[in-house]
Amino acid sequence: MATKIPVGILGATGIVGQRFVQMLEHHPWFEIAWLAASDRSERRLYSEAARWRMKTALPGRVAEMRLSPAKPDGAPHVIFAALDASVAAELEPQFAEAGCCVVSNSSALRMQADVPLVIPEVNADHIKLLDCQGWRRKSGGFVVTNPNCSATGLVLALAPLEVSFGIETVFAVTMQAVSGAGYPGVASLDILGNVIPYIAKEEEKMEEETCKLLGRLDGAKIAPANITMSAHCNRVAVEDGHTESVSVKLKRKVGTEQIIATWNKFRSVPQELRLPSAPEQPVRYLGSPDRPQPRFDVDGDGGMAASVGRLRPCGVFDWKFTVLSHNTIRGAAGAALLNAELLKVKGYLG
Amino acid sequence: MATKIPVGILGATGIVGQRFVQMLEHHPWFEIAWLAASDRSERRLYSEAARWRMKTALPGRVAEMRLSPAKPDGAPHVIFAALDASVAAELEPQFAEAGCCVVSNSSALRMQADVPLVIPEVNADHIKLLDCQGWRRKSGGFVVTNPNCSATGLVLALAPLEVSFGIETVFAVTMQAVSGAGYPGVASLDILGNVIPYIAKEEEKMEEETCKLLGRLDGAKIAPANITMSAHCNRVAVEDGHTESVSVKLKRKVGTEQIIATWNKFRSVPQELRLPSAPEQPVRYLGSPDRPQPRFDVDGDGGMAASVGRLRPCGVFDWKFTVLSHNTIRGAAGAALLNAELLKVKGYLG
Amino acid sequence: MATKIPVGILGATGIVGQRFVQMLEHHPWFEIAWLAASDRSERRLYSEAARWRMKTALPGRVAEMRLSPAKPDGAPHVIFAALDASVAAELEPQFAEAGCCVVSNSSALRMQADVPLVIPEVNADHIKLLDCQGWRRKSGGFVVTNPNCSATGLVLALAPLEVSFGIETVFAVTMQAVSGAGYPGVASLDILGNVIPYIAKEEEKMEEETCKLLGRLDGAKIAPANITMSAHCNRVAVEDGHTESVSVKLKRKVGTEQIIATWNKFRSVPQELRLPSAPEQPVRYLGSPDRPQPRFDVDGDGGMAASVGRLRPCGVFDWKFTVLSHNTIRGAAGAALLNAELLKVKGYLG
Amino acid sequence: MATKIPVGILGATGIVGQRFVQMLEHHPWFEIAWLAASDRSERRLYSEAARWRMKTALPGRVAEMRLSPAKPDGAPHVIFAALDASVAAELEPQFAEAGCCVVSNSSALRMQADVPLVIPEVNADHIKLLDCQGWRRKSGGFVVTNPNCSATGLVLALAPLEVSFGIETVFAVTMQAVSGAGYPGVASLDILGNVIPYIAKEEEKMEEETCKLLGRLDGAKIAPANITMSAHCNRVAVEDGHTESVSVKLKRKVGTEQIIATWNKFRSVPQELRLPSAPEQPVRYLGSPDRPQPRFDVDGDGGMAASVGRLRPCGVFDWKFTVLSHNTIRGAAGAALLNAELLKVKGYLG
Repeated sequence: MATKIPVGILGATGIVGQRFVQMLEHHPWFEIAWLAASDRSERRLYSEAARWRMKTALPGRVAEMRLSPAKPDGAPHVIFAALDASVAAELEPQFAEAGCCVVSNSSALRMQADVPLVIPEVNADHIKLLDCQGWRRKSGGFVVTNPNCSATGLVLALAPLEVSFGIETVFAVTMQAVSGAGYPGVASLDILGNVIPYIAKEEEKMEEETCKLLGRLDGAKIAPANITMSAHCNRVAVEDGHTESVSVKLKRKVGTEQIIATWNKFRSVPQELRLPSAPEQPVRYLGSPDRPQPRFDVDGDGGMAASVGRLRPCGVFDWKFTVLSHNTIRGAAGAALLNAELLKVKGYLG
Repeated sequence: MATKIPVGILGATGIVGQRFVQMLEHHPWFEIAWLAASDRSERRLYSEAARWRMKTALPGRVAEMRLSPAKPDGAPHVIFAALDASVAAELEPQFAEAGCCVVSNSSALRMQADVPLVIPEVNADHIKLLDCQGWRRKSGGFVVTNPNCSATGLVLALAPLEVSFGIETVFAVTMQAVSGAGYPGVASLDILGNVIPYIAKEEEKMEEETCKLLGRLDGAKIAPANITMSAHCNRVAVEDGHTESVSVKLKRKVGTEQIIATWNKFRSVPQELRLPSAPEQPVRYLGSPDRPQPRFDVDGDGGMAASVGRLRPCGVFDWKFTVLSHNTIRGAAGAALLNAELLKVKGYLG
Repeated sequence: MATKIPVGILGATGIVGQRFVQMLEHHPWFEIAWLAASDRSERRLYSEAARWRMKTALPGRVAEMRLSPAKPDGAPHVIFAALDASVAAELEPQFAEAGCCVVSNSSALRMQADVPLVIPEVNADHIKLLDCQGWRRKSGGFVVTNPNCSATGLVLALAPLEVSFGIETVFAVTMQAVSGAGYPGVASLDILGNVIPYIAKEEEKMEEETCKLLGRLDGAKIAPANITMSAHCNRVAVEDGHTESVSVKLKRKVGTEQIIATWNKFRSVPQELRLPSAPEQPVRYLGSPDRPQPRFDVDGDGGMAASVGRLRPCGVFDWKFTVLSHNTIRGAAGAALLNAELLKVKGYLG
Repeated sequence: MATKIPVGILGATGIVGQRFVQMLEHHPWFEIAWLAASDRSERRLYSEAARWRMKTALPGRVAEMRLSPAKPDGAPHVIFAALDASVAAELEPQFAEAGCCVVSNSSALRMQADVPLVIPEVNADHIKLLDCQGWRRKSGGFVVTNPNCSATGLVLALAPLEVSFGIETVFAVTMQAVSGAGYPGVASLDILGNVIPYIAKEEEKMEEETCKLLGRLDGAKIAPANITMSAHCNRVAVEDGHTESVSVKLKRKVGTEQIIATWNKFRSVPQELRLPSAPEQPVRYLGSPDRPQPRFDVDGDGGMAASVGRLRPCGVFDWKFTVLSHNTIRGAAGAALLNAELLKVKGYLG
């Protein structure tokens, strides 16, 4: 690959936008060529418009770039979008209509019937929905989305179980990190020493996205998985990493060791295709009785692996376990990046 | 009541022991006359043996008291016990055999068939088990217990629902405060910015105690409630207050308003008897979509009320809600104190 | 006092505005009659416009009040102001010109030569500056201010030393609570597990206000105290309470016990006048080697006392100690309230 | 270097011991051959005896090693010691007498006249003290120490100023991370949302070690630097990284740019010798007004660089600034490791 594919970032100054900048710095296939954010940021230097919150240094080349207007004119062909839902609902269709490949982290279009909602390890085949997507047929542009950060870790843990044993019911309670709310996001006065048992619209997203992700491609649409599900979403004083207490009812009776092996052995399309951002082992089971924990486990495999632990029988359903994943890497920027890599290999970017 | 009843505290130097000292300071019926802790503390001044962690000042009279040996000789008739389970298993029977009324917060004897496990609002009648308790028949002494801090808030919220509508299934995920682990308890390196998805033996206690508490007195034993239940227990970086995400399946179909009214109107034995530590309203429903929260709600009614909020339909069972209660007041020292007040009024303290 | 004095609050919806509402709820002399905040809030119910962050319940009467335009027309005679400095610089003079008694917590006018900057225990006589204040001579209205929250605790600790021994040099490093930055204020992503060694303009305010407060009224102006001073200001992950490490060089040689006694015995005008919000003991020395601490000591005397501890010799100056005070009570709303009480007794409220 | 030098770790299970294990995993010169901790741990597997608190995985080879008795018999020639001071006072001399090269992080012997206290960038020549050290003359063994974690960052920032401009007075207030207290160390109930203005013996160590480090080797002893110094030490709710507010009085008048350049250009013995653990730039000045901060800056140059910022004039002395360094890397295990590398190159490891 002689030259890299130029990409743009819509919503480049927020926390997820910053993760895109960070993760694209040394990417073997993609190169940042264009940045845009709100009108307020237009024409400013990225280093001035963004309040850099990553722990690695802001790449010098990006620091010196100026923010473009958030319009398709002059934007590159491939766009990563990290916009608030309301803005995304307006802008993403504009870019798709203009012929751009929009790889979006926003919730705006995730549940639209002809928009693929994809985790490459789980439902890579759903990208075929693009063949019938209106924008693509008209302009060649399209929108592909990744799920909400709270759904990602859960579905990575569920997918191998669904394939091997079938899932009937899922009960999930989240303890979500503050970075999931962006920056400035959650006020310190709200969360220091506290739990907030509410995140607007989060439970609805988590429930419906899980069923779409685990659903089956049926011609030009997705038949959602027939899973009964309930989610409770809470915010806790953690910087990065959503921890979730999960109970599941499976269709087949299995033993502890079988489930653990199913998780640890799980490999899928991104691993087979050796996509650059693919974790070696997408789901890793931790044997210690008190893991996973955000402090120790959130950065597993560069933040792209889901960590599972505490598998034990459940008094109501079959099994209980805890899953943890990095909300702004695996649950946001890394998710979109892996989608883009999948699209590239499958010939959709070119 | 001319003179107060002298009481002792076993395990007086720990966090729950300190709560007893704090809550007994101005108690109208009881007066601290004796304190004991581990051998290490024996004969030391309380102010030196205890690392006082309450926010109110250590009462001067107690500061000057010396710790007695943890033996029944010389102990008063009424003993509040705040011991670790392993120590309690050994000491509580000794005190009961010696004729003491042991009002215990420990888990050691809670599930013993002839030991009442009591929340006065929920199952005050269970104290009749004492009439058949071995110790009581021999020496007049006895042991009465209150539940684990994680079960208390949950059962306060469930009890009115059980009475009015019947409960079939309970799913509960806790986010528990560090004070529940005593002092020094949870290391700061373990919990700052973190979630620990494990508390040893907590899930088992929560599940079985809930069923005993909601069970029915049947002659000389308790028939546990026929409830299917699953608990996940997590530790979070909160000082005081256990927050719990709960789903329930009820036996009867009811509406939101009916449930809320059932909670808000719930009054029971402690309110009828006007026990000094009884909250005016044991369960209070908070209408705001993001409450209850430990920061704002944990001290409701002096820490003796359970706060409930976010009642909404559940995708798996009937209803979801959040409950919060103070783990070292309502869930420990205050629970035992209310039990002692009930026992006093019912004539069990002699 | 048959009827209470009606008062207004400018900036009523912020954290300090909420403290005013909380502290005025049961005030014996004042009664909230008028509330105003930003244009955005105008005409809305207080319960809707303010995101109530206090731990006590929002008083029902205030909840139902509507926010007035932030203009003197229709405002009561006595106004508590809790505005951002830039807004205060514009609005406070308008209210003073219109004849209002403005008791301000803002920094805008604190250093203006004819505006008293007052801590009633320290420099109650400075209110005589009002007799020459331009607004007062024209309209009868005036502005009185209290110091920055970081200066308040420090100056309470310094004042008795200045009186008894004389102060030459002060070195102070603060560790300030997040509530000092208002709401939403400090983002959780900025402060969880972190220290921010910078608070805009705070060090300058702390240094110059300390000298004005400890200065001498000299006819129509204040001669600032001749103290050499250096302040470093840091933000830490504490909810309420500014902790400060202080070293001082005194003019006279004294012993430890003498200094401690000087602090503990310190009583002044508010105590003599028995002002309703005056702490019984404005400065209390805590003998334990690891105190004061925000968790335990911030609410001393209703948050109106400064707590001092760890007095020990300093390798560079004479003495080192730690001081703690509540930044939104003693350092903001309570400070203004005590000023208003002083003004009332001294006949300035008309 | 064909084979690596086998080394042992005394106190291998604590937080600093774990850092040694972590930092030695891929070390080019040293290889862990022996581990010891308390009697309680003897003969246990390291993976069972240590509660691993590092974020990288416990190296498999070390996990399987068994803990040896903490005695010189069978110990390798080079020993890293991470013991509590009281234990170190007893054990380190035993190992030195037995001929071991003890590279210690403990405070026990730091101030002993013939024991070098070394930061290789600051006073590498002090290792010549070894030539007169009693143990070395008898058995060939010796003890070399590194300073307290609170002194390390400070002295790294001061050393270039001392060399270039001379230092007269230092005032330092620390805000120290909880990892500095080891594990379990600080109880979460003590530090969540709190500041503790006291760390036992820390201020004394910081003051005297700073003067020894900046002192001059004078034959067989160190003439301490003639610096007047005062330290205040506080604990804050930060995981790793001590932040310090510092004021200094210099002997020569200089400008801001000159000081910043002096810091940024500072290179010394470890950089010249290209020691494997040496940071490229030992002191780096951060230009942003609100840095350094633990969250972003603590891991600079693998945790081996001190970060300095906020240089500005001081109202009392000449200059104020903030310094941050990693307390368990640069301030403990990494410090000892760099000392060992220096000793190796200088021929002291035999």
